[in-house]
Amino acid sequence: MTSAVDAVRETVCRLHDELVRYQLVAWTAGNVSGRVPDQDLFVIKPSGVAYTGLTPESMVVCALDGRVVDGEFSPSSDTDAHAYVYRHMPEVGGVVHTHSTYASAWAARAEPIPCVLTAMADEFGGEIPVGPFALIGNDDIGKGIVSTLTGHRSPAVLMQNHGVFTIGKDATAAVKAAVMCEDVARTVHVARSGGAVVPIAQEDIDSLYDRYQNAYGQP
Amino acid sequence: MTSAVDAVRETVCRLHDELVRYQLVAWTAGNVSGRVPDQDLFVIKPSGVAYTGLTPESMVVCALDGRVVDGEFSPSSDTDAHAYVYRHMPEVGGVVHTHSTYASAWAARAEPIPCVLTAMADEFGGEIPVGPFALIGNDDIGKGIVSTLTGHRSPAVLMQNHGVFTIGKDATAAVKAAVMCEDVARTVHVARSGGAVVPIAQEDIDSLYDRYQNAYGQP
Amino acid sequence: MTSAVDAVRETVCRLHDELVRYQLVAWTAGNVSGRVPDQDLFVIKPSGVAYTGLTPESMVVCALDGRVVDGEFSPSSDTDAHAYVYRHMPEVGGVVHTHSTYASAWAARAEPIPCVLTAMADEFGGEIPVGPFALIGNDDIGKGIVSTLTGHRSPAVLMQNHGVFTIGKDATAAVKAAVMCEDVARTVHVARSGGAVVPIAQEDIDSLYDRYQNAYGQP
Amino acid sequence: MTSAVDAVRETVCRLHDELVRYQLVAWTAGNVSGRVPDQDLFVIKPSGVAYTGLTPESMVVCALDGRVVDGEFSPSSDTDAHAYVYRHMPEVGGVVHTHSTYASAWAARAEPIPCVLTAMADEFGGEIPVGPFALIGNDDIGKGIVSTLTGHRSPAVLMQNHGVFTIGKDATAAVKAAVMCEDVARTVHVARSGGAVVPIAQEDIDSLYDRYQNAYGQP
Repeated sequence: MTSAVDAVRETVCRLHDELVRYQLVAWTAGNVSGRVPDQDLFVIKPSGVAYTGLTPESMVVCALDGRVVDGEFSPSSDTDAHAYVYRHMPEVGGVVHTHSTYASAWAARAEPIPCVLTAMADEFGGEIPVGPFALIGNDDIGKGIVSTLTGHRSPAVLMQNHGVFTIGKDATAAVKAAVMCEDVARTVHVARSGGAVVPIAQEDIDSLYDRYQNAYGQP
Repeated sequence: MTSAVDAVRETVCRLHDELVRYQLVAWTAGNVSGRVPDQDLFVIKPSGVAYTGLTPESMVVCALDGRVVDGEFSPSSDTDAHAYVYRHMPEVGGVVHTHSTYASAWAARAEPIPCVLTAMADEFGGEIPVGPFALIGNDDIGKGIVSTLTGHRSPAVLMQNHGVFTIGKDATAAVKAAVMCEDVARTVHVARSGGAVVPIAQEDIDSLYDRYQNAYGQP
Repeated sequence: MTSAVDAVRETVCRLHDELVRYQLVAWTAGNVSGRVPDQDLFVIKPSGVAYTGLTPESMVVCALDGRVVDGEFSPSSDTDAHAYVYRHMPEVGGVVHTHSTYASAWAARAEPIPCVLTAMADEFGGEIPVGPFALIGNDDIGKGIVSTLTGHRSPAVLMQNHGVFTIGKDATAAVKAAVMCEDVARTVHVARSGGAVVPIAQEDIDSLYDRYQNAYGQP
Repeated sequence: MTSAVDAVRETVCRLHDELVRYQLVAWTAGNVSGRVPDQDLFVIKPSGVAYTGLTPESMVVCALDGRVVDGEFSPSSDTDAHAYVYRHMPEVGGVVHTHSTYASAWAARAEPIPCVLTAMADEFGGEIPVGPFALIGNDDIGKGIVSTLTGHRSPAVLMQNHGVFTIGKDATAAVKAAVMCEDVARTVHVARSGGAVVPIAQEDIDSLYDRYQNAYGQP
């Protein structure tokens, strides 16, 4: 394997610590993958391995059809969904899947999260949409993710009765989207459970999204 | 004691760290036990001892009637219930008991947790059932666990007004079930508190359960 | 100061770590005190000092009228309440005060926590009662604690619009009661927010309380 | 830069650890600033930098019009709001901004937090008020903060659909206000979600506020 692959193994491995730190995952559920730049490969978590036991070497390298190219472990049971996204969304460099509590709660109701926080407008550019119910074992989950997110500002989709998938230009951006998705899912849930929330005008959402995508962070 | 007993002491001791890590226990409530393979013995937490003070040596070895065979401490006050399960469910190699918040909340309402998450279908194969109210001090709790879980896919039972007992092929599997039980108990509670949840069709639950039990994790 | 005083300084200091570990306190709110055996003294946290900065030496030694006997810092602003309890409840060896979230929420509604969990029957022997609204600055808080807890099984009282005070035979027992009080306050809140809870019969509460007080833990 | 600036860099950097410890922030959202005593300068977090990567050297020094005076990074995207507060409230020595969950939930409903806890009376002297909806990019947020907090006892303002800004005599006091704001936002939310809360009489609020501001902590 090339050093580019090794770099992605290292990054993808380390990013799982963020899923644990933000309490987005229980036991071994939840996984991060990252595309290897300029190669038709991605790196993903092994299936059913504890987060505390992950090492860069234990990460699994897959081709874009989901077959294992390198690695001693079986890849995540969600590998087919990740692979489908990489094949159909060439701009995507990272994918994250979790069953984080509040995002999954909205998913269990098949209810999009309304955009009533400026932080949501910043990161998601509007509501966080719901994708279809789909069984594991073929391309149905992948198709549901891609059909829901294509043409949508949101990097997160709530898969009905399941959990959340997020995408990003790289694995770090996808993890950030997973962290922020749970954060706003929780805040909006709490807000609404106390009474009616105040909507934000669409033009204000547009303005916030545009500014955050272009002016936030370091140049 | 044999080295097989020592190995179970080590595992059972260490697994209590997971109860703490996932915040399933307060003070000294909650306990793990593990059957010693090929011997009529199991190893369990001492009663009322702080989690930070547990050592393999402080674990208590009991016969299947609950009597102490080896150990300087009194065993968990739930020992009779664990013993009853080991006597009547020979396939069970580990038992866990907690008062974890959300599972205990469903138990206080004597309400089963409906299966509205694919992760629940995976691990529990359907709803998580409720067992009877039972006082400590005889075999009533053990009987309630066994009668509720016998013939049921779920490795977890919500004992009315009490908390949760989980079983597994070994102590690690029982701890996993306790972690996942609290996780889905919380997510479904949050989901339903925001409106109506979407049911999952029984045939889809069956399909998810079958796949997860047979294809997840490492071969 | 005697070595008995030093031992209580050490214990009281260290027990504040449990308030932090169980997230019962924010910033500097919340305090533990312990009676010095066989002396008319108790040891308490200094006022407004961060938990991470506490040392045995920084603890304040007070007489039973609340006056400082030894210590370089001002004592907790709740010292008068602790002192009142020690003067009027000679069996009490430790007092804890927190504004823990769920206990304080019941207190803000002036609503006792109903006993619908066996763990509540074990530790509290029934409902957790509410004490009167009282301002700080005289003996009103202390009187409210003592009048509510005298003749009551519960070692915890919810002071209206304020927070929780707990007592115990020593400071460790009072901290345990504070931890368990928040635990059951949270579980019962969550339980009831999902529908009607099942009551426990008084004779079963009595039986559980009697057994736990006499048979739990190490001899 | 003078050693006074270096001291504020150190303090402001370290205080971000408290935002993380109390789980007030997700990813890189949320920031602390501190005024440099006797100079028309303040120190603020760099934009979009992870909390684990912050060092005193990475903090950004700004003039009171918000322009960067020293620092290798771009300052927080909220710098204009902090600067506006420092220009118009000369008594303020520290400003904190977070999207903490419960405070932001009240903000999403544009609902002030009613003062039903003695700890709220102590720290906030009454309800925590709501400021206007305002877009980032000009002085609107700063104006909203200053107009809401001027003449108000509360050091915290809930900016509609956004989050919370707190002020203090120095950065530590502003962080304390942010921690306490989330704490009472959560407790009052939980309290009200279980039924009607008991109000505190205005004269009692006044008495508590006066005492806490003048008698709490070390002389």
